[in-house]
Formats: sequence, C-alpha cells, structure tokens
Amino acid sequence: MQIPIDPTSPRPAHEQISAHFAHLIRRGVLAPGTRLPATRQLANALGIARGTVSLAYDNLGRSGLVRTAVGAGTFVLETPASASDTPSPARPTATRFDWRGYVGDRIPPADDTVMAAVLEAVPPGIEPINLLRPIPDPSLVPLDDVRRAFRDVSRALRPDVLDYASAWGYAPLRERLAHDLATLGMDRADDRTLLVNGSQQGLDLVARALLRPGDVVVTERPAYRGALRVFQASGARVRALPMDAFGLDLDALERTLRAEPVRLIYATPAFHNPTGRSMDVDRLKRLLDIAGRAHVPIVEDGCFRELRYDGTPAPALKALDARGLVIHLGTFSKTLFPGLRVGWLAAPATLVDRLAHYRRDVDLGSVTLGQAVIHRLLEDGVLERHLDRIRETYRARRDALVTPLIGTGLEQRLDGAHLDPPSGGMSVWIDFDPPLSGFDVARRIATRGVLVSPGAFFDPGGADLPGIRLAFSTVDEAALARAADAVIDAVREARRTPERPAASAQPTTPVI
Amino acid sequence: MQIPIDPTSPRPAHEQISAHFAHLIRRGVLAPGTRLPATRQLANALGIARGTVSLAYDNLGRSGLVRTAVGAGTFVLETPASASDTPSPARPTATRFDWRGYVGDRIPPADDTVMAAVLEAVPPGIEPINLLRPIPDPSLVPLDDVRRAFRDVSRALRPDVLDYASAWGYAPLRERLAHDLATLGMDRADDRTLLVNGSQQGLDLVARALLRPGDVVVTERPAYRGALRVFQASGARVRALPMDAFGLDLDALERTLRAEPVRLIYATPAFHNPTGRSMDVDRLKRLLDIAGRAHVPIVEDGCFRELRYDGTPAPALKALDARGLVIHLGTFSKTLFPGLRVGWLAAPATLVDRLAHYRRDVDLGSVTLGQAVIHRLLEDGVLERHLDRIRETYRARRDALVTPLIGTGLEQRLDGAHLDPPSGGMSVWIDFDPPLSGFDVARRIATRGVLVSPGAFFDPGGADLPGIRLAFSTVDEAALARAADAVIDAVREARRTPERPAASAQPTTPVI
Repeated sequence: MQIPIDPTSPRPAHEQISAHFAHLIRRGVLAPGTRLPATRQLANALGIARGTVSLAYDNLGRSGLVRTAVGAGTFVLETPASASDTPSPARPTATRFDWRGYVGDRIPPADDTVMAAVLEAVPPGIEPINLLRPIPDPSLVPLDDVRRAFRDVSRALRPDVLDYASAWGYAPLRERLAHDLATLGMDRADDRTLLVNGSQQGLDLVARALLRPGDVVVTERPAYRGALRVFQASGARVRALPMDAFGLDLDALERTLRAEPVRLIYATPAFHNPTGRSMDVDRLKRLLDIAGRAHVPIVEDGCFRELRYDGTPAPALKALDARGLVIHLGTFSKTLFPGLRVGWLAAPATLVDRLAHYRRDVDLGSVTLGQAVIHRLLEDGVLERHLDRIRETYRARRDALVTPLIGTGLEQRLDGAHLDPPSGGMSVWIDFDPPLSGFDVARRIATRGVLVSPGAFFDPGGADLPGIRLAFSTVDEAALARAADAVIDAVREARRTPERPAASAQPTTPVI
Repeated sequence: MQIPIDPTSPRPAHEQISAHFAHLIRRGVLAPGTRLPATRQLANALGIARGTVSLAYDNLGRSGLVRTAVGAGTFVLETPASASDTPSPARPTATRFDWRGYVGDRIPPADDTVMAAVLEAVPPGIEPINLLRPIPDPSLVPLDDVRRAFRDVSRALRPDVLDYASAWGYAPLRERLAHDLATLGMDRADDRTLLVNGSQQGLDLVARALLRPGDVVVTERPAYRGALRVFQASGARVRALPMDAFGLDLDALERTLRAEPVRLIYATPAFHNPTGRSMDVDRLKRLLDIAGRAHVPIVEDGCFRELRYDGTPAPALKALDARGLVIHLGTFSKTLFPGLRVGWLAAPATLVDRLAHYRRDVDLGSVTLGQAVIHRLLEDGVLERHLDRIRETYRARRDALVTPLIGTGLEQRLDGAHLDPPSGGMSVWIDFDPPLSGFDVARRIATRGVLVSPGAFFDPGGADLPGIRLAFSTVDEAALARAADAVIDAVREARRTPERPAASAQPTTPVI
C-alpha cells in the first residue's frame, strides 16, 4: 500500500495517513470488513514509526470508520447509512432514488452478528490462533513453481488466450483432467468435464439450472455453508439430514425420499466440511442404490478428496456410479490455491452440454490464462510433489490438534464431547451431547485467544447446532496444541456454567 | 496441439490423427462447436503433408463427428444422442438416469439453426470475411506490454494474491477506477465500485439480485443478446422498444411506463450494440428525467464508451445522474482484451454492498491476479497508449466499411436500406425499410463470402428483424471494402427477388 506522506506539510503524518484511509473508506475502495494492514507492516512499508500508524488508526476509530479487535486486527466498518442517503450537496433538488426500498428482501443483507460476537470475545492484546478457515496454508504455496509457470505461460502467450474463452475451458487442461479422472474410474464414456470458476461456480450453475423455488434438496447437517446459501438462493427448501461417523444417515435419507419428492442430493463423501467424516465403500454403494431407485441425482462435492492422510482410500462416488446419477465437483483451490479460481464439474454429457451453454450467459467463460497456469503446474509435476508435501504437513497438524483432545480418552477429559478423528481434509468437528450451544462454546474459546466456527454456520436455518468446527490447515503444530488446551478448558467451563444459546445465529460470510 | 504419430505403426498417419481426434471428441474434450486447427496449420505443427490432415478430417466427417463448412473451417458436431444414452457395456444391468427428462425445459437447449444456415451459405473454397464479432482485434493486443505486466506481477507475487479474493476485487484497481471515474464525473459520494468477471457478470448479478419472474425490463430493439438472455433467464418479461438515430425512443418509453409497472431499464447510450448509435446529452437528460419520475433504475451498459472515433463526446448517463438511479457497467474487454475477465459495476453503495455480499455465493470472488495485471497495464500507461492506437485503426476500418455504403448516397445504391454511420464502437447496423428478412439478407451476403449477423440475434423473441449487423473491428480495410460490395450486391438481389423470411430464427451463442 502506497500512502503519500508530505513531510513538509504542517499536518502531522498520522493525520495524513488517517485522512488517506478515511477517503478510501468513504469512497468504498476499502469495503466494510476489509482488514487494514497491521501497524508494524504498514510502518515498515512507509518507513515511519509504528506509533504513528497506531495514532492514525485511533483517529479512524474515533471517526467510526474502523473497529480494532485487538489481536484480530483493524477492520473497516459499514459507513453510516445516513451518509449514503444524504443527497449530494451539489444538486440539492434531486430526490435520491430509494435503493433500500427497491432492493427490499430480494438480496438478503449481510448479518455478521455471530462472527462479530465471537471476534469480540478475544481479549485485548492477544493475537488469536485462527481455526476458522479450511484453506491451503498460504505459506506453503510453491511460489517459485507458480512464478515459473507464469513465466512459461506468459512467454508462450498468444492473442487467443486473451480472447473470450470457450465456455468449456482451456482444452489442454480438460484433456489432462479427463485423463486423470479416467485413471480414478471417474470418467465414463458419456461424461464430460466443464471447467468452472472454482467448484463454487459449479454448485451455483447446478442450482440455477436445475432448481426451482420449492424444490427439495437434501444435504448433510452440518453442511458447507456456501452450498446451503446457493440452494436457498434458488428458492429450494433444504432438508438437512443427520450424520453418523460415516457421513449421511441413509436411513434418514430413505425416510425423506419416501415422504416427499426430492429434486437433488448434495453430499461430501470424502472428508466432509465441517465434520471431516468420510463414507466407506458400503455407504457409497448404498447411497447410489437409494438415490438410483428414487431417480434423484447426487452432487458429489469432491473438493477435499485428495487430502487423505491415512486409512484406506475409498473410491469417489462418481467412480461407482453405473447409472450416471452423479455430478462430481472438483477443484484446485484446496490442493494448490484458490486464487486462480479453477474447478471442474464432471457429469453425463446430456447435462454438461446444457450447463456449458447456460454458463456463457453467466460470465462469457473463465480466465483461460489461469487455467493454463494450472495446466502447466500439473504437467510439470508440481501438484503431485506439492500434494506429498502438504499431506505430510496437514497430517502433522491434524495430529497436533486431535491428539490432546482424544489422547487420554476424550470422554474423561471432555465430558459429553465427541470427536471422530478425520483421516483427511482440513477440519475437525466436536459434537456436544448433551447439547451445549456451539455459539457459547466458540465465544468461551475466543476468550482464550482461539477462534473456531460455531455450528450455526453450518445449519440451513442458522440454528445454534451443538458443535464447533476446528480448521487446522493453516496453523502450526505448537499453536494447535495450545488451541486444543483452550478448547478443553472452555468446554469444561461451559459444562460447569452453561449459558442459554442465542435464539438465532446468522453467520458472517465468507464461510468456507 | 500435440498428436502422437507413430511412424513405425502399420496404421496410416491420417488414421492415427483421426483416431486421436475421435477420442477427444467422444470424451467431450473437444466440445461441440469447437473448430479444429486449419489443415495447413496442423500439418506444419506435426511436420506432415497437408493432404494427410485433410484425409484425417474426411475420416472424422464420415464418422459424423465433425462438419467442414468450407471456408469457415471444420467444426465438432454434437455426438449422437444415442451414444449418450447407451449404458456402459461394463455394467449392462444398471438403468441409466434420464437426464434429458430431468433437465426438461429448465435449461433452454442451444439452437444453432440460424447461424448454421448462414455459415452453410458460404460457398466451398472461400475463406469468408467475418463481420460477426464486435471484439478487439486479437492481432492488435499489445502482447509485449502484457507479457511485461505478467512478469512484473508474477515477480511480486505474494501468497495472498493466490488466496480467496475479496468479493470486491483487487483494491488498487478499485482505487484507480474510482479515481478515473471521478475525473469523468461518474464517481459520486455514495457510489461504490465492484469488480466483476466482465460486465456480463455484472449484468447477471443485477438480473439475479433484482429481477423476479414476471418483472418487466425495458430494452432497446435491437439489443445485445447477452443482456436479453440474462433477463429472460431471471424470468423477466422483456419489452424491447424502438430506436431512432439517437437511440432509445423516449416517447415509447413514456408510453410503456404509463402502461405497466417496469422494474428496470437497460440501455447502451454510447455506441450501442448492435446499431452503433449514441444518445446525445439532451436524450440522456430526458431519459434520466423520465426514469426518475417513474422511480425505475437504469442499467447503463458502458462497454463501448471509450471507443469514440469522432464527434462530440457526450457524458456518461451516470455522470448526469443526480438521483442515483444508474447502475453503470464497464469493462476492459473491448479496450484491452476480454481474456482476463475484468469488468466493473459502479452504483450507489446501498445496492453495491448487497451485490458484493451476494456475489460471494456465486463464485467466491474473481481472479485477483488478472485484476492485478490490468492494474499494472493502467499504471504503466499501456491502456491509454493502446486506446490511441486502436481508435485510429478502428476509425479507419469503420470508414472503409461505411464509405462505400453511403459514399454516393445510400438511397441510390441501396434502395430501402438505412445506415447511421456510428461515431464509435465496433459495429454498423443496416435497417431495411420496406422490410427485408435480415436472415435472408445475411444468407445472401454469406453466399458472397461475407459473414454478418442477422437481426434475429438481437430480438428478445428471436424475431427476424429487418436488419443486419456488420462488426468491423477485427477486419482489415481492404476486406471491409470487399465486404461492403458484397452487402450492396446482396441487398440489391434481395430487393429484386425477396424470399419469405424464416418464421422463427433462434440465434447461436455466443453472440457478443
């Protein structure tokens, strides 16, 4: 970040800095929720004292433009509504259009109350250990390999790579994926693969193309928030069914299929987010059998499936799918990095041809160049080497978190808490039975300097599920061990002095 | 394209090549509509005789996998439906899921009949002059500058650029845009700018967030097909109103606004696609006044507005908008290139904050790196220099096309054809009055080796509008002069021997 500071100005440097930020915030360039640079980082970048930056941030806080959650950082607040609705003084006569009334409830407003309450529980002066994000550790990104891939792709850059892309995506990457999926038994004669802007866009396309208001979609409970939101945006009614240690409860699924027409089943059979649980091969086969008999297709979210750390590999649901029921979603966001937005959707051609056609209207195709970089990383063997490395690192991190929680017998140490150690993925889930408010427990953990996600994030109605998610992939082992202690301590406290759960808990976004 | 050819194989090279393509087509790696490499190009790349490649393509044609439209190239066909619906022989007992029935009419199928009929009218052996695409000429892309920008961005690559992006987009580019828009009077105190994947995604977000089935949207007729499709996908009813030489007919707009509640107005005030026409300042002010009194917001598609070649610059609608009625869409796809998918949406904060929130569910944000490359090109002054260059080139191309059409008096040479020479943009529109079928004229032009878009592409119902669009930005001046001759010739012939227009003409996609 470049901030022009005029040393000859009579205005002190901290005021110049706060005025600069205030301008950017008021113009919306720094959006609500944006985290300002850490004071030390900005001071270094500008070559000034850290105290000067702190003074500038204090100014901003007094102006109501930012809030500093000590430990978590300084965040841009919503600018006061009054500012938005004041007519421009230059044209005082024009009546401002009432956007608030016009939008109405067509776009649900952001409600960050749960997240804000958890963040605010972090005591001042503590840099919290952040177990909120099941994403690849940015510090593990193979930057040199990525830079080399960029250099190679950019050297060979031809104008057609900068033209509108095929709605299907970069052909060499599709070809490579078809080959890789074939070796996993996931590429059938009538399948096609469509490249999308991350598997999130795949979910969104499926929901938009296949769901109409009132359609019933079955998911696991808890479930990935981004999927729930996409289904709900299409007007679908979500039936979130219970899970056991092997994933979706299929008896409950059968009951639901008997009780009402179901349009779509969404499931994450391998290293489910948030629970980390996986279906074994028998469960997968029975799921296919039940869905096939009911003629209900299944969206298989495969985004974590390559992150196995131990145990027997199960095939993908798609690999067992003789009926052509399964829409498989995959991504490079969890194995490499999410920033190039490259994911894919593999399913029978009859469906995918239509989705590709439909997708052109949505955004006229993806960034070919990003797909070319990913292709290069695959061809160079970078992904394979990188997977070896991150599997080892994440395995150690999982162990660092899980071992203290179950080491000497979970029930002894954490009365009424249950944890199924996952054999892969990026998160661990703790269930409380008898129930404790996930929100309350998350806040108690935050007071101990550790951030975890309350169960409410993963319920279609935002209900305060009696559980918490601990995402371990970006945190080092020592910190994870400390986090485990904080969790044990907080849960014990919650058992001793239970609080009433919040009536309704709407999560912030993005929840991943 | 790399095709492994084994010179020691008893199988002739052309069969090896056709088998390779057949595999890729059956796997869907080469999607329907994909154009195979030109025979000469592929022969050079593989170091074999051109006739060998021709033989291979003939094989593919006989297998029903491709169709060669001589002059236009060899295109992959839809694989036969029977192949898609045949059960995998490995598991003959499983009943295949009926995707065709499941999808039903939820996704409209591609209907390429109009485009196919126009393409097929091109006589064998002719490389047609292609006036179908209003896009930047790929051969003008400042490749060295782009490569340098990539190198710089990739050198400075930090892991956070590869993490999930802010839903708002890359902050330095937003900051730069806010500054540039402010100098054009387009950035008001309560505005915010959201970066999107091309202005197409901006259109799609607006339609999804603001429209519900049955809502009425007003557009120009003819109108950009990608906008019509997005509005129709949201279930909106499109009222396409007539235009005159200065754009949307505002008397017709007033009548429509009196007759029924209108939810949204979509207009392209500068260098409208397909007509190339622009609103003058009086028209802009009256449009704002009418819409303001009716409390109907306006989506201003500004995608061509920087491509002015002569005449007096008019302000953007947004720059005159004291009420905060206007959602402005902009893009770098027409000025630089579309391949990095960088566009923006500028509108009052109350709306944009909600759209940004909503947008996270759609794709979890854009490719930050592409936005960083665009930012670098702006900071380096590449866009400004490039605009000077392409304005000059496109101006000359417009003149090369338009001068022969109007040079000695259009009415004398082209009885009943009307053309308003545009002062910018990428296309010219010819109206036929008394009407001629745009589809019939486009086919007659195709028989003369020139491809133009029939009016049907730009009507919400696919009606065979009595007009054609000639997109001139990618064609050199000599070819444009020849194209003008072909147009004159074909229109004269159509007047002498009019054909019945096709009852309904559904265009292919992508139509830009």
